[in-house]
Amino acid sequence: MDYPLVIGQMLKTGLTAAPGQRITYGTQFDMSYAEFGGRVARLGSALAGLGLGPGSVVAVMDYDSHRYLESFFAIPMLGATLHTVNVRLSAEQILYTVNHAGDDAILVHQDFLPLLLPLLPRITRPVRLILLADKAADLPEGFAGEYEALVAAGDAGFAFPDFPEITRATLFYTTGTTGDPKGVTYSHRQLVLHSFGVIACLSPVPGRGGIKSDDVYMPLTPLFHVHGWGFPLIATMLGMRQVYPGRYEPQKLLFLIAEHGVTFSHCVPTVLGMILNASGSEAVNLANWKVLIGGSALPEGLARMAMARGIDVHTGYGMSETCPILTIADMVASQGPGDTTSIRTATGKAAPLVEIRVVDPEMQDVPHDGVATGEVVARAPWLTHGYLNDPARTTDLWRGGWLHTGDVGNMAADGTLRITDRLKDVIKSGGEWISSLELESIVSSVPGVVEVAAVGIPDVQWGERPVVLVVARDDVEAAVHAAVQTAIAAGRLSRWAAPERVLRVEAIPKTSVGKIDKKAIRAGLAQNAHPVTG
Amino acid sequence: MDYPLVIGQMLKTGLTAAPGQRITYGTQFDMSYAEFGGRVARLGSALAGLGLGPGSVVAVMDYDSHRYLESFFAIPMLGATLHTVNVRLSAEQILYTVNHAGDDAILVHQDFLPLLLPLLPRITRPVRLILLADKAADLPEGFAGEYEALVAAGDAGFAFPDFPEITRATLFYTTGTTGDPKGVTYSHRQLVLHSFGVIACLSPVPGRGGIKSDDVYMPLTPLFHVHGWGFPLIATMLGMRQVYPGRYEPQKLLFLIAEHGVTFSHCVPTVLGMILNASGSEAVNLANWKVLIGGSALPEGLARMAMARGIDVHTGYGMSETCPILTIADMVASQGPGDTTSIRTATGKAAPLVEIRVVDPEMQDVPHDGVATGEVVARAPWLTHGYLNDPARTTDLWRGGWLHTGDVGNMAADGTLRITDRLKDVIKSGGEWISSLELESIVSSVPGVVEVAAVGIPDVQWGERPVVLVVARDDVEAAVHAAVQTAIAAGRLSRWAAPERVLRVEAIPKTSVGKIDKKAIRAGLAQNAHPVTG
Repeated sequence: MDYPLVIGQMLKTGLTAAPGQRITYGTQFDMSYAEFGGRVARLGSALAGLGLGPGSVVAVMDYDSHRYLESFFAIPMLGATLHTVNVRLSAEQILYTVNHAGDDAILVHQDFLPLLLPLLPRITRPVRLILLADKAADLPEGFAGEYEALVAAGDAGFAFPDFPEITRATLFYTTGTTGDPKGVTYSHRQLVLHSFGVIACLSPVPGRGGIKSDDVYMPLTPLFHVHGWGFPLIATMLGMRQVYPGRYEPQKLLFLIAEHGVTFSHCVPTVLGMILNASGSEAVNLANWKVLIGGSALPEGLARMAMARGIDVHTGYGMSETCPILTIADMVASQGPGDTTSIRTATGKAAPLVEIRVVDPEMQDVPHDGVATGEVVARAPWLTHGYLNDPARTTDLWRGGWLHTGDVGNMAADGTLRITDRLKDVIKSGGEWISSLELESIVSSVPGVVEVAAVGIPDVQWGERPVVLVVARDDVEAAVHAAVQTAIAAGRLSRWAAPERVLRVEAIPKTSVGKIDKKAIRAGLAQNAHPVTG
Repeated sequence: MDYPLVIGQMLKTGLTAAPGQRITYGTQFDMSYAEFGGRVARLGSALAGLGLGPGSVVAVMDYDSHRYLESFFAIPMLGATLHTVNVRLSAEQILYTVNHAGDDAILVHQDFLPLLLPLLPRITRPVRLILLADKAADLPEGFAGEYEALVAAGDAGFAFPDFPEITRATLFYTTGTTGDPKGVTYSHRQLVLHSFGVIACLSPVPGRGGIKSDDVYMPLTPLFHVHGWGFPLIATMLGMRQVYPGRYEPQKLLFLIAEHGVTFSHCVPTVLGMILNASGSEAVNLANWKVLIGGSALPEGLARMAMARGIDVHTGYGMSETCPILTIADMVASQGPGDTTSIRTATGKAAPLVEIRVVDPEMQDVPHDGVATGEVVARAPWLTHGYLNDPARTTDLWRGGWLHTGDVGNMAADGTLRITDRLKDVIKSGGEWISSLELESIVSSVPGVVEVAAVGIPDVQWGERPVVLVVARDDVEAAVHAAVQTAIAAGRLSRWAAPERVLRVEAIPKTSVGKIDKKAIRAGLAQNAHPVTG
């Protein structure tokens, strides 16, 4: 009678709903859902044949591929844990996560062999190795087999085991700016409930907005990053057409969007900017493309650039510890008349079953007036229970019984949240809290500015003073100062927000998941290490 | 960190999503969601003030009203059980259910006082009584108060308690054709998961189909019947405009559909037929109305009549014990070209997280060929765990670890289920199983036939022989026989299905929830008790 919430049931729903629907990997591979269902079973049987099962940890190092999607289901459906390895981490960090996770097996793409093979002698547990290959390759010594060969030899009638819904399904590592990577885990129950919560948020949107079963889905967030924000599970359950892009190359992404009529993607702002600014981008019709932006705030300038191309762009908000989705910009209000940029870039309202509060350091709610700021804390059925084997940072994450996001924001009377900064990136100058994001948003609208980062640097008199880095096509310093003064005059920024310096740079430092690395920028500024151009 | 699935969170989501949205009761009352939220809190505080709380059982006897919707939330949010009393049961049955449920309080509409007051001396527990009044009324002796007065005096800031998700939320009684009514209960977890499963089934439907947040919802299944099929909870969470019709009167229903632009309803076939056949119906534009049919099979003739009016009609399938939804007709396929009647009247595919099997008496699956029939059994996270205080019938319901629906059906290769009959209504003639529903469907398409019922009557030679009752505008007997012979010639019916007799009757007996009462028909036929007309 007791029926657990497990992701195998989500797969079953998709296979029943759309057996003939297609799943595509780049220009290399294409299959129906019915074939996909058989491959998942055969992969499960192959892994079981290698001795993997309930309690095992199986790591994947791959681009966004059909193999990764198959692993999303087959590994957790075995009762094992899927460890999605962040291949952009340093070799030492990857070694740390493989050992910390206790991986029993690693599925590794041939491109990442030069990264992984030298680490093998330092992996502390015996580990089975499976090669993922896009082109013919010899099986390296010690490998258990090649993926396609193992799948081909597997049993399409393989019966996955039953287990409780609180069984751990996924594990990945999030890198803060200090300390070792932190292991974040989710159970089957959490992944299922996150999927249903996101569907209940996005699917009831009237018209063509949100997500519908006839959308064509292509992830543009790496699948190793918070399991592709949960969308591969959702797309599969809804029987959507799916396109997996492999390695992210702008021309290939544009080709896949055009070729398959992709209608729904999600990404960080920098990936959207990369596609819009890519050569040849203008020739591709993006007017049927819906893009959900997360990971960092969506700058208004980028939002306007996307909207000018006809893209239905909205912000989502969450983090690695929240599965990830907490809020989504109001997709009904954004269908209204007039300029909807501020609706689309707002952090949005809490998704179904999510509780959001904005609190002061004593955990008292700040007024819901759209102005007063505090830390954003959350509750929902899909927030991680804590960091793997790290009780101290788990306790800190959940102090007071609420998950602390480390983000600063305000809440309007109607429940709309707006994140104004990371708690650690707020620029504290002259007793004021200056939002680095607000400053960046204003500068991003200056013509010629391609990218921008604002940070605080230590100042004896004021505590901190803002500095702005820009990547720009021409000399924009005077225009940036003018735009900031206009914003100050309009009351949108405090007078403390006028940047001390505007530096035009070749590139802005990024973290392994493509976010602006403000810690690195501040360190660079302290050492005068940023190469300034123009 | 552990976050329970409770319906209070669904309310919170709706209040945040759509504070200004309206909820209407007939022509008498109208409020915003924000007011509704306050009233739910005040009702909760008023009930708590009467000593009701965790573990209490609170019964409601009302038409479909805003008060009922408030009770849907406030009573379970107290940790109490909402007992939705079927006011169409006999007085003795109602007394049985009130005593069996152990009601601690009854909220009763003034129209049902003549039913309830004489029973009070025989209610075995002390019971608090609250009057629900649409027009001024004196408070009967012994009543604790009138609903609006209690709500007005309540506390809009009332804090509902926390409790585990497996806490019992609802209780109602289902009447079989034999034995006492059976108490069916659902937990908060089950109601929340049913809501999310139904949303994941209906909201991703492309275009205007399914349900979207801009739909205008009016229930046409009594709220006491499987909590209005769960849709009041869903509509509230999605922030939909809601219209509660009060007592079902065809002209009033047509007026409300037109006045408020109702776009989504659910009902049994007889209610849809009543509306389509009501005088004045033709003058109302029903072309924006989506109707989900359940409770009984949707006859093809009725489906065609609805489609001719522009109604987007589909079948849903489930029962009191399944919360209720198990399957929904394919709303994507029904958008295709050509005659979609058979898609719309098919039982459909399993909703997300639902597992359906069609099995023989040894619990072996019958072939998925769209022909072989067996009993339909199910699993899902929202099926009732059993009948209240009735272990024997609970064990029978769940024999073999699957919920036995008592329905006979077949399954196509693509997973589409088609119910062909109730196990107990199948007509067993000459070694063949004749589907009474298929026979009814064919007869319903004969011009002039308003309603039809087919049953088996005992026959010494053949076991059973079919008899058809029709309500018709003129003499249709010859046309019915001709239609059946055509269907036999086409291979759609076996030759055993030709009815022994076609009886034109004034009315077809119905159960308390409006379904055709085949047990009563068979009993009437045995006694020659059906008044035959024409």
